[in-house]
Amino acid sequence: MVHEPNNWGRFGPDDQRGTLNLLTPAVVLDALRSATTGEVLSLAMPIKGATSSPAPTTVPHLPGRPLPQHFMSVDGGDYAAGARAIGEGLYVADDALIVSHHGTTTHMDALCHMWSGDELYNGHPAARVRSYGATRCGIEQVGGVVARGVLFDVPRRLGLDHLPADFRIPAELLAEIATPRPGDAAVIRTGWPAVWGRSREEYWSGQPGLSAEAGRWLAAHDVSVVASDNAAIGGLDARGLADEGLADDLHLILLHRHGVHLIEMLWLEELGERGCTEFVFVVAPLRIEGGTGSPVTPLAIL
Amino acid sequence: MVHEPNNWGRFGPDDQRGTLNLLTPAVVLDALRSATTGEVLSLAMPIKGATSSPAPTTVPHLPGRPLPQHFMSVDGGDYAAGARAIGEGLYVADDALIVSHHGTTTHMDALCHMWSGDELYNGHPAARVRSYGATRCGIEQVGGVVARGVLFDVPRRLGLDHLPADFRIPAELLAEIATPRPGDAAVIRTGWPAVWGRSREEYWSGQPGLSAEAGRWLAAHDVSVVASDNAAIGGLDARGLADEGLADDLHLILLHRHGVHLIEMLWLEELGERGCTEFVFVVAPLRIEGGTGSPVTPLAIL
Amino acid sequence: MVHEPNNWGRFGPDDQRGTLNLLTPAVVLDALRSATTGEVLSLAMPIKGATSSPAPTTVPHLPGRPLPQHFMSVDGGDYAAGARAIGEGLYVADDALIVSHHGTTTHMDALCHMWSGDELYNGHPAARVRSYGATRCGIEQVGGVVARGVLFDVPRRLGLDHLPADFRIPAELLAEIATPRPGDAAVIRTGWPAVWGRSREEYWSGQPGLSAEAGRWLAAHDVSVVASDNAAIGGLDARGLADEGLADDLHLILLHRHGVHLIEMLWLEELGERGCTEFVFVVAPLRIEGGTGSPVTPLAIL
Amino acid sequence: MVHEPNNWGRFGPDDQRGTLNLLTPAVVLDALRSATTGEVLSLAMPIKGATSSPAPTTVPHLPGRPLPQHFMSVDGGDYAAGARAIGEGLYVADDALIVSHHGTTTHMDALCHMWSGDELYNGHPAARVRSYGATRCGIEQVGGVVARGVLFDVPRRLGLDHLPADFRIPAELLAEIATPRPGDAAVIRTGWPAVWGRSREEYWSGQPGLSAEAGRWLAAHDVSVVASDNAAIGGLDARGLADEGLADDLHLILLHRHGVHLIEMLWLEELGERGCTEFVFVVAPLRIEGGTGSPVTPLAIL
Repeated sequence: MVHEPNNWGRFGPDDQRGTLNLLTPAVVLDALRSATTGEVLSLAMPIKGATSSPAPTTVPHLPGRPLPQHFMSVDGGDYAAGARAIGEGLYVADDALIVSHHGTTTHMDALCHMWSGDELYNGHPAARVRSYGATRCGIEQVGGVVARGVLFDVPRRLGLDHLPADFRIPAELLAEIATPRPGDAAVIRTGWPAVWGRSREEYWSGQPGLSAEAGRWLAAHDVSVVASDNAAIGGLDARGLADEGLADDLHLILLHRHGVHLIEMLWLEELGERGCTEFVFVVAPLRIEGGTGSPVTPLAIL
Repeated sequence: MVHEPNNWGRFGPDDQRGTLNLLTPAVVLDALRSATTGEVLSLAMPIKGATSSPAPTTVPHLPGRPLPQHFMSVDGGDYAAGARAIGEGLYVADDALIVSHHGTTTHMDALCHMWSGDELYNGHPAARVRSYGATRCGIEQVGGVVARGVLFDVPRRLGLDHLPADFRIPAELLAEIATPRPGDAAVIRTGWPAVWGRSREEYWSGQPGLSAEAGRWLAAHDVSVVASDNAAIGGLDARGLADEGLADDLHLILLHRHGVHLIEMLWLEELGERGCTEFVFVVAPLRIEGGTGSPVTPLAIL
Repeated sequence: MVHEPNNWGRFGPDDQRGTLNLLTPAVVLDALRSATTGEVLSLAMPIKGATSSPAPTTVPHLPGRPLPQHFMSVDGGDYAAGARAIGEGLYVADDALIVSHHGTTTHMDALCHMWSGDELYNGHPAARVRSYGATRCGIEQVGGVVARGVLFDVPRRLGLDHLPADFRIPAELLAEIATPRPGDAAVIRTGWPAVWGRSREEYWSGQPGLSAEAGRWLAAHDVSVVASDNAAIGGLDARGLADEGLADDLHLILLHRHGVHLIEMLWLEELGERGCTEFVFVVAPLRIEGGTGSPVTPLAIL
Repeated sequence: MVHEPNNWGRFGPDDQRGTLNLLTPAVVLDALRSATTGEVLSLAMPIKGATSSPAPTTVPHLPGRPLPQHFMSVDGGDYAAGARAIGEGLYVADDALIVSHHGTTTHMDALCHMWSGDELYNGHPAARVRSYGATRCGIEQVGGVVARGVLFDVPRRLGLDHLPADFRIPAELLAEIATPRPGDAAVIRTGWPAVWGRSREEYWSGQPGLSAEAGRWLAAHDVSVVASDNAAIGGLDARGLADEGLADDLHLILLHRHGVHLIEMLWLEELGERGCTEFVFVVAPLRIEGGTGSPVTPLAIL
C-alpha cells in the first residue's frame, strides 16, 4: 500500500485523522492480541511543576520553552495552618496545571501542528488555525489510539546506550529490526533522554532522530503513529533546529503529507530493558478542542 | 474478598495505589479478552477553552470553578497577517492549556484528593500534601489503568433518559445489573450530563449519584476504579454539596478508606447507546508529580 | 483645539501614544498643583483570585469572561505542615497571577485594543497585532500617566445613587459639571458597580455609559484619558453589547479615531464621597510588551 | 525617630502597612513639591511574554524562575485569516498574562513575603498566609505610594558603570550621598541590570546590594520604601542566595522587623543619567487580595 506524498483525500475529502483511519475495529482487535504478559508500562516522563522550589528538578526539555507550572489551590498545609474543612471533618486538595506541551513533556502532535504553504494535511485551510484554536485537524479529532506497538530500539541494535547527537537513523536500520504492518504504532528509541541526567548542555547540543528516508519508509508502511523518545522525531542540530530542507523535514513528511500523528518525548527506558518488541500501544490525548496537541501518558501493554 | 473499611496496609505499608494493585498482569490479560468488536470509544467531554469568544460554548461543569483556558501562542492567523515562517516555508502552531480539572472536565482523582482526620488513604500523612504538590498518593502513582469495564447503565435499567437529581442509586439496583469481579472498573451512568443542553440551571439544581451503600458494595467487590458521568460519584444537593454525613461520604468511602480511584464527569452517552456492558477500560492520567488528579480521556474498547 | 476624527498623524506618523502626548512636562507640573489635601485614594477594585474556595467572592465583572486566578506557590501553610525554611529560620511566600483584564478588573486599554478596517489608531497596520503581541500601539507605549483628574460625578449631579442601566450621558450634562483642559483625565462616575452587591443579574442587565456625543465632546476637549467605573465607557444593552453603530461606538471614537486611552472598571465610590472634583490622577500600566492593556491601580491624589 | 528592631505595634496592633503609615497627607503634599521639570520616567523593565517565539528575548531575571507568559486570545492575525468581527466592522484584541513576579520582573513585595519564626511583620500570624492568599499583610494593604524619591546612585558616586557583584554598600556611602527624611522612598542604583546585556552568566554570578548596616541605617531614617535595581535589595552570592545570617538578612531587617516595603528589579538607567537626586516617586501595586507582592511600574516625576 505504498503511496505518494500529498495524496490529499486518501481517506476522503473531510479526513482529519490521517492514518488513524487505518485503526479499524478489526485492526484494533488484532492489536490487542499482541499482549503476552499483561504488564502495563507508562511511557510518559513526569510533569514536574516546580515553581517556587529552591531546588527545582526538571526533566528533559527543549531550551527556551515555558515549563509546566503546577499549583495547589488548597492543600494539607492549609489545614495544618488552621483552614476550615469543606464539610465537617472533610478535607480536600485541589490544583491547577499550566502546560505548553511541545518541547516540555511527553505529548502528541495534532495534524494542525505543522504545515507548509497555505494548507494543513489533506488540504484543510491553514487559516482555520486561529487564536480560538484550530477548527481543522485539532487534537480532539484523535479520540483514542489502540494499535500494535513495534519497538525499534536502535541503540540496542547498535550495541550503544544511546545514539550520538548527529545520528540520523537510516531506513535500512529500521528494516533490519522489524517490518511494521498497516496501523502499527512505530516506537523509536534513541536513548537520548538518558543524556539529561549527565548534562543538560549535552542534551541540548543536538539530538539523534529519524532520517527523512526512514520517515518515508514508515509512512510507506502505513504506520498509524510514530512515537519517539527524542523531541522532534527527526534530529536536531546544535542550535536545536531540524536540519533538513523543506522536502525532508520529518514533521512535514509524516504529519503534513501522510497524516501520521507524532508522539514525542516518550520515556522508553523500561520498555527497552524488557526486550519486548511487540505490545499493545494505547494513547488518548486530552480532548482539547482545537488543540495543536496534548500532553499524554502513552501505555505499553506487554 | 470482602473487607473492612480503613484496612490500612492491605497492600502493604507503603501502598499509594490502592485497589489499582488488583490489576495484576494476569487480570490485565483477562481484561483484554473483554473486547469483542474492536470499536474504540472516547469517554471524555471536550475541553473548550473559550476565552475571548463572543459566544463561548461550555460543557457540563460545577458552578464557581475556574474553567479551562486554551491559548494559541502561534497560529495560522499570524502567518496570514505576515508572520515569518520558523524555517523556509515551515509553519507551526503551538498552544498552552490552563486547567483546574476537578468539577470542570473529565478527570481522575488521586488518592490524595480527599481525606478526613490527619491521614490520607493508608495512613499517609496529610501534611505531605503541600503547595509543591503531594509527596504521598499523588496522581503520578497511577501510571495506567487497564481493566475490564462493566457498565451500570442505571437510567436504562429504569427506563429513563436520566436519573432524577435526588436519586441515590441503591446497592441492590447495581447488583441487579451486574456483579463486578476484583479489578473491574465500575462505570456508572446516570445520564445527568444530557441535562446540560436543556438547562444549566437544572444541571446545577442537584445531581443523582451512588448511595453510600452502593459505594460500599462496589468497594466490597474490589473494583479497581469507579467512573461516573456525574461530578462527584455520590449525589449533590441543590447547593452543589454532597449531602451525606462523614461516614457515608462517597469520596471518603472509596478514595480514603478503600483506596479506590475515582473518575468523574465522563461522557457515557455513546457507550450507553451501544448496549455493551463489558469492555476494556483504559485510562492513563498525566504523570503530574504530586497532582491531586488529572484531566483524562478514558477509553472503552468494545 | 477641536479637530476632526481620523486625524492620522496629528502627533506625527509614528505616534503610538495618542493624546498622552499632550502630557508635556509643563502640563504634568501644572497637574501636580491640583493636589490640595494630600490624601491618596486607590481607584482599583480588588483582584480576588478565588480558585478552590467553597465560597468565592467576586467583584463586578462581565459574564463569560475568565476571572483572575491567584495561586500561592509556597505559603505559611507549607511551613505549618513541616516544609523546610529556605534558609535557616527564613520563610518565604510566593505566588502567581493569571489575569485576562478586559471585563474582569480595573484596567487600562492600549490603543491596539479595538479598531475598524485594517488599521489601528494613526494608521498602524492591524496585521501587526499577532499572537506574540502587538508590535504597534501596545500598552508598553504608555509608560506612566500623570494628569489633572476631573471627576464627572453624573449620578450626584442628578441626585441619584447610580445612573439607570439605559442612561446614556449627554454631552451637555458633562459640560454642566466641568470643562476639561487639554491633557486632563476625565473620570466618569456612573455608580453602576454598587449594583453588583445588590444583584449580579441586575449588574448584567445593561450598563449606563457615555453617549457618542459625550465621547466626541471629551475628545474635542483633548482629554488625555477617559476613565470610568463602568465596563465599556459607553453603555451596554441587555445582551452585554455596545448598542451604538460603528460610527458612534465609544471605543472607536476615543481609542481608534482620537487616540484617547481608556481606563475601565474603576472604583470611584470613595472619590465620589469626597466631593472633590479636581485632583492629581496617576496610572502606570504594567509594561507588557505588545499587551492590549493592563490591570492597573489608578490613584487620585486629592 | 530612631527605633529598635521588632518594635511590634509601632503603628498600632493591627498595622499591616508598616512605614507606609508615615505617608500622611502632609508628607504627600510635601513630596509633590519635589517635582521640578515635570518629566515622567517609568522605572519598570519590560514584561516580555515570549512563549513560542523562535528567538525569545528576555530581561534580567533570577535563574529557575517561571518567566511571564503573555497570550493573545484574539488578535489581528485572526481577522487576517478570516475571523468575523465582534460587531459589524468592529475588531478587538484581547490577551492574558501569567506572572510570578518575584525574581522575574519589576515588582513590589508585600509585608507577608518573608518572615522568621511564626510571625509576620508586627506579630501577625504566619499561619494566615495560605493557599487562598494571605489574610494578613497582603499587597492589597498598600493602596498607592506617593513619596519623595531620593536616588542613591552608588556606582556614579564611585565613578563606576555598575557595582561589582560582591560589593555590599556600606551605610556611610549612602550617608555621603544623601540623608533621607521620614517617608522618603530610598531608590538604590547598583547598575547591575546593565550586565545582562553583556552576559547572563555574569548577571547570575552574584549581585551587589545593600549591606545589613545600610539596611538598618535606612530603616532608622524611617524611609517608607526601599527600591533597588537588583533582585534582592541585599547582595546575592554565586549560588544566587543572600549570604548574610538571619540577623543581617535584608528582607528580614526591612520587611519583617521594620515594615519597610521593598521594590526590586527596577530599571534606573535613565533616572541615573538625568543626575536628578530628588523627585516624586509613585507606585501602585495591583490590588491582589492576599498577594505576596505585585508586578509594578514605578514612576519618577522629575
